[in-house]
Amino acid sequence: MYKPVVSSITPAYSFMKLERKRDLENKDFAVIGVPFDMAATNRTGQRYGPQHIRNFSGMLRPYNPDQQIKIFDYCSGVDYGDVEVIPGNIHKTYQNIEKELNLIFEKKITPIMMGGDHSITLAHLRAAVKQYGPVALVHFDSHCDTWDELFGEKYSHATPFRRAVEEGLIDVNHSIQIGMRGSLFEPEDVAGAMDLGFKVWTMREVRNAGFESVIKSIHERAGNRPVFVSYDIDFLDPSYAPGTGTPEIGGPTSFEGLEFVRELDGLNIVGFDLVEVLPAYDSGDITAAAAANIIYEMITLVALRKKKRPDFKI
Amino acid sequence: MYKPVVSSITPAYSFMKLERKRDLENKDFAVIGVPFDMAATNRTGQRYGPQHIRNFSGMLRPYNPDQQIKIFDYCSGVDYGDVEVIPGNIHKTYQNIEKELNLIFEKKITPIMMGGDHSITLAHLRAAVKQYGPVALVHFDSHCDTWDELFGEKYSHATPFRRAVEEGLIDVNHSIQIGMRGSLFEPEDVAGAMDLGFKVWTMREVRNAGFESVIKSIHERAGNRPVFVSYDIDFLDPSYAPGTGTPEIGGPTSFEGLEFVRELDGLNIVGFDLVEVLPAYDSGDITAAAAANIIYEMITLVALRKKKRPDFKI
Amino acid sequence: MYKPVVSSITPAYSFMKLERKRDLENKDFAVIGVPFDMAATNRTGQRYGPQHIRNFSGMLRPYNPDQQIKIFDYCSGVDYGDVEVIPGNIHKTYQNIEKELNLIFEKKITPIMMGGDHSITLAHLRAAVKQYGPVALVHFDSHCDTWDELFGEKYSHATPFRRAVEEGLIDVNHSIQIGMRGSLFEPEDVAGAMDLGFKVWTMREVRNAGFESVIKSIHERAGNRPVFVSYDIDFLDPSYAPGTGTPEIGGPTSFEGLEFVRELDGLNIVGFDLVEVLPAYDSGDITAAAAANIIYEMITLVALRKKKRPDFKI
Amino acid sequence: MYKPVVSSITPAYSFMKLERKRDLENKDFAVIGVPFDMAATNRTGQRYGPQHIRNFSGMLRPYNPDQQIKIFDYCSGVDYGDVEVIPGNIHKTYQNIEKELNLIFEKKITPIMMGGDHSITLAHLRAAVKQYGPVALVHFDSHCDTWDELFGEKYSHATPFRRAVEEGLIDVNHSIQIGMRGSLFEPEDVAGAMDLGFKVWTMREVRNAGFESVIKSIHERAGNRPVFVSYDIDFLDPSYAPGTGTPEIGGPTSFEGLEFVRELDGLNIVGFDLVEVLPAYDSGDITAAAAANIIYEMITLVALRKKKRPDFKI
Amino acid sequence: MYKPVVSSITPAYSFMKLERKRDLENKDFAVIGVPFDMAATNRTGQRYGPQHIRNFSGMLRPYNPDQQIKIFDYCSGVDYGDVEVIPGNIHKTYQNIEKELNLIFEKKITPIMMGGDHSITLAHLRAAVKQYGPVALVHFDSHCDTWDELFGEKYSHATPFRRAVEEGLIDVNHSIQIGMRGSLFEPEDVAGAMDLGFKVWTMREVRNAGFESVIKSIHERAGNRPVFVSYDIDFLDPSYAPGTGTPEIGGPTSFEGLEFVRELDGLNIVGFDLVEVLPAYDSGDITAAAAANIIYEMITLVALRKKKRPDFKI
Amino acid sequence: MYKPVVSSITPAYSFMKLERKRDLENKDFAVIGVPFDMAATNRTGQRYGPQHIRNFSGMLRPYNPDQQIKIFDYCSGVDYGDVEVIPGNIHKTYQNIEKELNLIFEKKITPIMMGGDHSITLAHLRAAVKQYGPVALVHFDSHCDTWDELFGEKYSHATPFRRAVEEGLIDVNHSIQIGMRGSLFEPEDVAGAMDLGFKVWTMREVRNAGFESVIKSIHERAGNRPVFVSYDIDFLDPSYAPGTGTPEIGGPTSFEGLEFVRELDGLNIVGFDLVEVLPAYDSGDITAAAAANIIYEMITLVALRKKKRPDFKI
Repeated sequence: MYKPVVSSITPAYSFMKLERKRDLENKDFAVIGVPFDMAATNRTGQRYGPQHIRNFSGMLRPYNPDQQIKIFDYCSGVDYGDVEVIPGNIHKTYQNIEKELNLIFEKKITPIMMGGDHSITLAHLRAAVKQYGPVALVHFDSHCDTWDELFGEKYSHATPFRRAVEEGLIDVNHSIQIGMRGSLFEPEDVAGAMDLGFKVWTMREVRNAGFESVIKSIHERAGNRPVFVSYDIDFLDPSYAPGTGTPEIGGPTSFEGLEFVRELDGLNIVGFDLVEVLPAYDSGDITAAAAANIIYEMITLVALRKKKRPDFKI
Repeated sequence: MYKPVVSSITPAYSFMKLERKRDLENKDFAVIGVPFDMAATNRTGQRYGPQHIRNFSGMLRPYNPDQQIKIFDYCSGVDYGDVEVIPGNIHKTYQNIEKELNLIFEKKITPIMMGGDHSITLAHLRAAVKQYGPVALVHFDSHCDTWDELFGEKYSHATPFRRAVEEGLIDVNHSIQIGMRGSLFEPEDVAGAMDLGFKVWTMREVRNAGFESVIKSIHERAGNRPVFVSYDIDFLDPSYAPGTGTPEIGGPTSFEGLEFVRELDGLNIVGFDLVEVLPAYDSGDITAAAAANIIYEMITLVALRKKKRPDFKI
Repeated sequence: MYKPVVSSITPAYSFMKLERKRDLENKDFAVIGVPFDMAATNRTGQRYGPQHIRNFSGMLRPYNPDQQIKIFDYCSGVDYGDVEVIPGNIHKTYQNIEKELNLIFEKKITPIMMGGDHSITLAHLRAAVKQYGPVALVHFDSHCDTWDELFGEKYSHATPFRRAVEEGLIDVNHSIQIGMRGSLFEPEDVAGAMDLGFKVWTMREVRNAGFESVIKSIHERAGNRPVFVSYDIDFLDPSYAPGTGTPEIGGPTSFEGLEFVRELDGLNIVGFDLVEVLPAYDSGDITAAAAANIIYEMITLVALRKKKRPDFKI
Repeated sequence: MYKPVVSSITPAYSFMKLERKRDLENKDFAVIGVPFDMAATNRTGQRYGPQHIRNFSGMLRPYNPDQQIKIFDYCSGVDYGDVEVIPGNIHKTYQNIEKELNLIFEKKITPIMMGGDHSITLAHLRAAVKQYGPVALVHFDSHCDTWDELFGEKYSHATPFRRAVEEGLIDVNHSIQIGMRGSLFEPEDVAGAMDLGFKVWTMREVRNAGFESVIKSIHERAGNRPVFVSYDIDFLDPSYAPGTGTPEIGGPTSFEGLEFVRELDGLNIVGFDLVEVLPAYDSGDITAAAAANIIYEMITLVALRKKKRPDFKI
Repeated sequence: MYKPVVSSITPAYSFMKLERKRDLENKDFAVIGVPFDMAATNRTGQRYGPQHIRNFSGMLRPYNPDQQIKIFDYCSGVDYGDVEVIPGNIHKTYQNIEKELNLIFEKKITPIMMGGDHSITLAHLRAAVKQYGPVALVHFDSHCDTWDELFGEKYSHATPFRRAVEEGLIDVNHSIQIGMRGSLFEPEDVAGAMDLGFKVWTMREVRNAGFESVIKSIHERAGNRPVFVSYDIDFLDPSYAPGTGTPEIGGPTSFEGLEFVRELDGLNIVGFDLVEVLPAYDSGDITAAAAANIIYEMITLVALRKKKRPDFKI
Repeated sequence: MYKPVVSSITPAYSFMKLERKRDLENKDFAVIGVPFDMAATNRTGQRYGPQHIRNFSGMLRPYNPDQQIKIFDYCSGVDYGDVEVIPGNIHKTYQNIEKELNLIFEKKITPIMMGGDHSITLAHLRAAVKQYGPVALVHFDSHCDTWDELFGEKYSHATPFRRAVEEGLIDVNHSIQIGMRGSLFEPEDVAGAMDLGFKVWTMREVRNAGFESVIKSIHERAGNRPVFVSYDIDFLDPSYAPGTGTPEIGGPTSFEGLEFVRELDGLNIVGFDLVEVLPAYDSGDITAAAAANIIYEMITLVALRKKKRPDFKI
């Protein structure tokens, strides 16, 4: 079983110093980067997100005390490297994402995709659905990303989840969006997501109902369906994650942001992504620290399932 | 009714892309900058605060989901530009501020002034009082700013509210200061504000009594008098607003900082300011994000009053 | 004749505090921004270039001592604002650029376009040529930008000048490229530009031949034809202009970079652009300072022609 | 009794503008810097920590409103300057630290040592114990720092407390560690500290049990023994203290971080340190602000004891 | 003879680790800071200039190889600390500067004043002249700073040398200004300096005539009169000194900037200042490095005179 | 023959996207990192130098137009990864460096080592000499690094070349040091290097004699002996390379810094290093750009020799 080199002071060039290789044999998870930001409004530069997260990830260590598991005693993983993206051509980029992700899904490996702007999740979902059928979406974000179009464009970082519903990729009645806040163009920006069928927790509702209620709601909603987890780093308050494109103040702390991931244990997760890290606006690498730790908790979920349900097949 | 161009990816050159013009016809509010910092101790550079806030404000959108209102369906506003300030001459600068603010108040328009250091509020109050008589002050800050003098100087960013009381501008028995914390020169720095007649909530008292109590206290204190709201960005904890001159750790979150403004709904507010944003110490523009959103909530209050009390006259 | 407000300490919201308005009456030049960066490889974020340059431009003053002219005694200009760009759609963005530029060229006004990545120059050239026919290109850059395609894409910031030649927009036998340096994918990256017909001065050749020879070469090459000047800020060494997308070390100083523009006096210039300023990588705003001063020298050229050749018509 | 110059706008060159001098006569506390970082893994540069903290400390003022005491009415202190450190030689550096600290302890002065990396605490403890015998450790940190060795090295910033136990410096049954979190190499990283005899509160346990329980636990644990307080700035969440070497997300706020120090009042504290401030990763000097205020609260504890127990001798 | 502690890795708290004390006995030079920036247009924050320069100066070492002298074998100096400045009151600040400088000049000690903005030089000149009579000014800057007034104000960082001429402080026929460049409000901005009687070398003239000619011109101009040297860090190109208030591109390199100071050897210099360092816009501390080295060369001039002309008295 | 993936917009994780692997078969050069900085005085953090350089190197392309060669048509290389370093133990770190370098030298592969601080070159030299016997050193730096000891320590970043001479590693009569400048502790700091037998060119001498003379001197000095090239990034002026530990102003431009490497063509170079890159003080990644391009020119020298002298054996 492949394990990363024990973390040391030599800096990382792959996530957690996992082997960086396009090798999928006997792997349980694969970390993969998509340095694409050409569908982003507001600030851009998310293409360096995967590099930034990997650079920081050298500080991570293999035992997770919060979940009480030595990750690599139970699972094996690889840093699959980056998808080739095509500047200025979102559809060809989508094809390249799908091609690589199909290879990963076909082997029943859990991908953890690092963005890049949020538009890339659409291609990720297409690949997931090809293998597993429509998925229950668990979506952490400050925005619903369900606009119909943006300046006439159908494919952008603001529209992936409406497109995904239209393409039948999302089992919307079992899907949920958490953390919405900030000013909107129209009331429909959030109401539209609800009209599509999503359960939506605004940040205010999260604060009012309390953490436990939201966790319970996620599990009730997703049940034992195949689940896809999409985590936009702007879910966190900008004081914890300044390095992102469209920051919205008033969000959760990094402690809360980690707890949400930890509490997903038990769901039948088929894929993860973590998007919208933008290094040029980071300070003291704290956004990289947040993103690397969130991915670390995602990997832990893979390990926990292997430990608790070794024979589980989705 | 004038509305801003719908926000898009072209960056802003005025607050929220409002028309930038010295035109006060048929307006309900006017955003105005005062790039003045020559009365600041500690860090300086607040003169670029208005530019920094405007630059970020392009990300704001016209529907406020927390207050459930499409702002520009109910009110009209302008970015009035910046007051001409006179380097090294605080009194002439005060005259220029008063001159412009008088024009705004005369038309019963609600000004939202962006600083600049806190000394400028004195001139703002003079203009407000000329129109409305002594005002009830609602003041968010980590400092009372009621010193008598600073190194022998009567006019600085540490003295405006004592001067204002002396000039009869503040209806001190109906005024309130919230958020005080950090080390002091003398116990009198806070006690002196209380001696002047202010109700003072230190940050510790806010934490102990709870948010609801403070909100209630504000409304009881101000009643239906004309209210002036002064918001120093250092009210927020420096992790949420590092870009300021005299940061004091241990303050409220940006979520709390927004909620305080939202809960002012119902007061008879005649003017606002938001001061002490200092871009050179900001990181990832998060201070700009906080300041822009606070101003956005101030504008929302104008809209809410127009919606709920369309015939209201102060 | 319109003149900017005398520069003062209030920060700028338009280039040099020119009137910011879509008003072309009685103007000699128009500054216009294109906040587009979706065709950039390497670092991105050039969409905030125009905002960054305008922010700094408040330090510029109206008398140019190097050219000995009070600019606004001889010419009148406007800050036309930004072109609406379409995220993820380069061709619609091109259309929007052309539409606005056509309005400017039709009135024989000299546009000074601020990028944005270099792909936008193609649309600028289309508009210029519609009015004046094929132009002689004077191009300052560290790259030729004459690739045929990039990852299969025909339209990117690396291909505009090959496209322009193919579209017949450039009078290539009278065109010139200056400052090329840095590693290449293939020898053809530069040789290809020469094959298209361009005169190319690599930076090494500039250093060896000397400044005077290059200036002479420009004037000989362009003669009295209509000239279009395209200035990529990465022409300067990164120590003078770190805030750009594809920095190449070993370039000219800012002094040299200004002198090249000054020495264009006498050419029949119909349009200018200044592209690839990327604020997120700037330090101490020195890239903004360089860009603002280069544009200032471009405006000066407009003024000088009005002074020396008041009856000149292209 | 020596008091600092009243804080003013001239920047500080010593902590709080205390006299900077190797003079220990009639002093109650001494602030001392150790610019050493050669035992740090991950990020380094902690040698500039003391300079960074002093630079910011000019904003501190002599009255502590939370503890209601004019500090310098009750105690006198000095900025003793920096220990000479020996690049590349941790043991000679330890000797230099011990030599200076012995002078301080011999006079029953309370030292407040500013790091530097956490390895320096071992030398500090040696000096403390020489005067007072084994001490009860109260340790705020995100890491236990009780590894046995790091890459074969016995002395590093990850091992000081195991070495100290081995050397008999710590009264481990009355010692306590608070705030542990983040991924570990092995479960033993925390379990090992407990095996040594420490009471350990992980951050999760702190959140669950509540602040009051932890404070009570500290006082019960330490009782009336001589106490040594070691505060690693990475105890705070990185959003409050990004400028450190091994940030761990999910930590306490700066408000909580200050409260812990304030609540130590009543303990028989013989020495303090505050370590791991790393300026090169700070943003807006907020880490310096946090560190300076924590030291300020430590000084306050000295003053409070002098006020409440003027005849107290340890 | 006082010598600084040999430089080591412990950071500096005074210039070059000179004794920091208000002690003028047996000193040849005194470094003194003036943290004042309330007369600055454009960017501000120069008040932290002295702290920033001192912080970096710990890297300087006592032997000057370019001038081949062990500085402290020939002269003795002190870091006199900072003048108390009065926020918002330039005239009281001037009085404080004069009071301290008079003490220094009376003892025939050469002051090296660190700003702060350039307005402070006026007070420095008043003190110099009180001791030595009108001085020949040698002034390195990108601006003449001889405006009559700025927004109606007579005293600012743009006017000190006109005020000085009016007060009879400058022997203008033997004075010289070097490095002027950048856009102007009016031709008179430079011409006015010449009308006052200054010899002015614009940067373009310096480039054309060559370094040697300028040096010769300085010595011819000043002859054996008492000389005052004022050095604005914006004399250097912003790529070498980004941390300043009003950067003008196209200036000299740091090598050239040092050579100018070295070549002043032989003049009868009575005082120096180095102004306009603004840390908040510095990057990698390179402006601090430039400023510290320039001051180092100034100190070297004091040492060289002591070595070559030990009995010299001005 | 191994060639890197053609550069594209996906960021690099190895130098120039070379294969990152401990595989030395059929290689001509190997890039290797040493993330060690525990022997550095002044600023530290050079351990992240290799990561920073690799991150930027994705912008490099395979054709070198200045040397007119497609590099990978003539040579094959690998990114060998990083040496394991031991925090706080320079001698064990030296052993690890030697162990890896011996493997490389044994296969007659040319290593290009990226630091890390300059102390590591001693271990590099030991390995080189084991294979080739004493080497002629060509050393670009602002410091001689030939001190005998530093605070009593024999092994630091200030002493490697004296130790190397003592160990008989350097053929000192054919060795040369270029670029020395800045203040010294003693005249002996440079004179001592000359006493050891080095030819030393101070920066002033380089400026006076001219580039050509220095190049000639290098070739005359080294002749056809085995040559080792050590390049400290602080050779460059800090405006071109702010991200380093001990910056000395007044150095060469990046253009000059590249030319020196290009002109080494023809020497019998057995090994290279590039040291002292310190990312935390870099701005806009310009130091990374300089370092990556210098290494690129070093690789080019390997390719040129393979092209011109395919049968050459040292």
